[in-house]
Amino acid sequence: MNEIIESLYNRKSVRVYEEKAIPNEMKNVILEAAMQAPTAGCQQLYTILDITDQNLKEALAESCDHQPFIAKAPMVLVFCADCKKWYDAYLEAGCKPRKPDVGDLMLAVTDTAIAAQNAVVAAESFGIGSCYIGDIMENCEEQRKLLQLPEYVFPAVMIVFGWPTKQQMKRKKPERCEQKHIVHENTYRNMEGDELREMLAYKCKNSTYEEWCSAFCNRKYNSDFSKEMSKSVTEYLEQFR
Amino acid sequence: MNEIIESLYNRKSVRVYEEKAIPNEMKNVILEAAMQAPTAGCQQLYTILDITDQNLKEALAESCDHQPFIAKAPMVLVFCADCKKWYDAYLEAGCKPRKPDVGDLMLAVTDTAIAAQNAVVAAESFGIGSCYIGDIMENCEEQRKLLQLPEYVFPAVMIVFGWPTKQQMKRKKPERCEQKHIVHENTYRNMEGDELREMLAYKCKNSTYEEWCSAFCNRKYNSDFSKEMSKSVTEYLEQFR
Repeated sequence: MNEIIESLYNRKSVRVYEEKAIPNEMKNVILEAAMQAPTAGCQQLYTILDITDQNLKEALAESCDHQPFIAKAPMVLVFCADCKKWYDAYLEAGCKPRKPDVGDLMLAVTDTAIAAQNAVVAAESFGIGSCYIGDIMENCEEQRKLLQLPEYVFPAVMIVFGWPTKQQMKRKKPERCEQKHIVHENTYRNMEGDELREMLAYKCKNSTYEEWCSAFCNRKYNSDFSKEMSKSVTEYLEQFR
Repeated sequence: MNEIIESLYNRKSVRVYEEKAIPNEMKNVILEAAMQAPTAGCQQLYTILDITDQNLKEALAESCDHQPFIAKAPMVLVFCADCKKWYDAYLEAGCKPRKPDVGDLMLAVTDTAIAAQNAVVAAESFGIGSCYIGDIMENCEEQRKLLQLPEYVFPAVMIVFGWPTKQQMKRKKPERCEQKHIVHENTYRNMEGDELREMLAYKCKNSTYEEWCSAFCNRKYNSDFSKEMSKSVTEYLEQFR
């Protein structure tokens, strides 16, 4: 166990912030840490939008499933998988690049999330809390308008950052499931009913497996925002074929 | 600047390893660091395959664009975006979940890459080098067979780990482009020809912009493995609609 491992183990989402800015030098180090992340062929297949405009933060707080805390965060970054800039660079050089395709998008999405996580780890090292907002993938049309996203640019993750309040610091980090249910040796192992029940047992504290799963399924998986996310992602994907 | 930032800044890919195992306790800490990463709704939307079988490593070295160093790595992890396990858990509970859709896949892919990067950062803190293998997305049919991947499971990233040789430690980390070309304020800014040329100038050392871009475009973007990646990803995507 070292300082870095400890920081990775302890990091939890922070959604309530002190009213205190993040100094520019810190922001720059966080952005640079993202840019120093591993990247396929050193291509940095992402563009990071640094949302400084308060009106835009408020619009995003609305368009990302009505979460007002987003607008209160002193730093808001949208990490876009960018399949446009290299395509444009090739055209500028007179090359004949093929149109961006779904493989490019997937590679760019992983590149983007890897860079994003470096930003989270860097922020944490300064004591700055963070929270991923997956909802940035929803409401395709509105996000495109708000962020002026052109074709071949997909907002993969948003992260909001801020100094945690005391109450947030004390909040218990939500438990993860046991390693044996996540790590399979060599090949994928289908988990049968009993193992699934065992995997989720720690979540079903005061309810049966059936009760907890039903409630969670309704709240997350079968929710309107979840369906909207697939509708939106389908729209983004249509550019790539 | 602190120890964590320094580690994030200095980390570079390592492709040649000492013949020396990674102790099990270290491996477990690296896996646990991945599992402690931020995850949407605490769902851990991934399954990690720990490739311990030497024959399987060798098969993956072949199927991932013929890169023999993969088979020489003492630790090989395949991070799969897993949209199957929760679907199965809901079915087991008697819920009526909708079929997994592309939004679920994208959310799972970002979840997966975020966890993977924690593994990389944790390994680095022990002095263990790593290298992402994006090619795991290629050759869909073969990977599915090798890793016994069922429907709704997508191998998003592979990472190989090992102790760097002295020569690898001395290798210069490839330069990143300037922050101003990656970070846009508030909205996406289309980069015009001059800015694209400026962005990539540091790469075109002994050649013109046109020469460098043409060679790179042919080697990467217009390559056979890149087209194969899109073909494969298209196949994985077909399950999700």
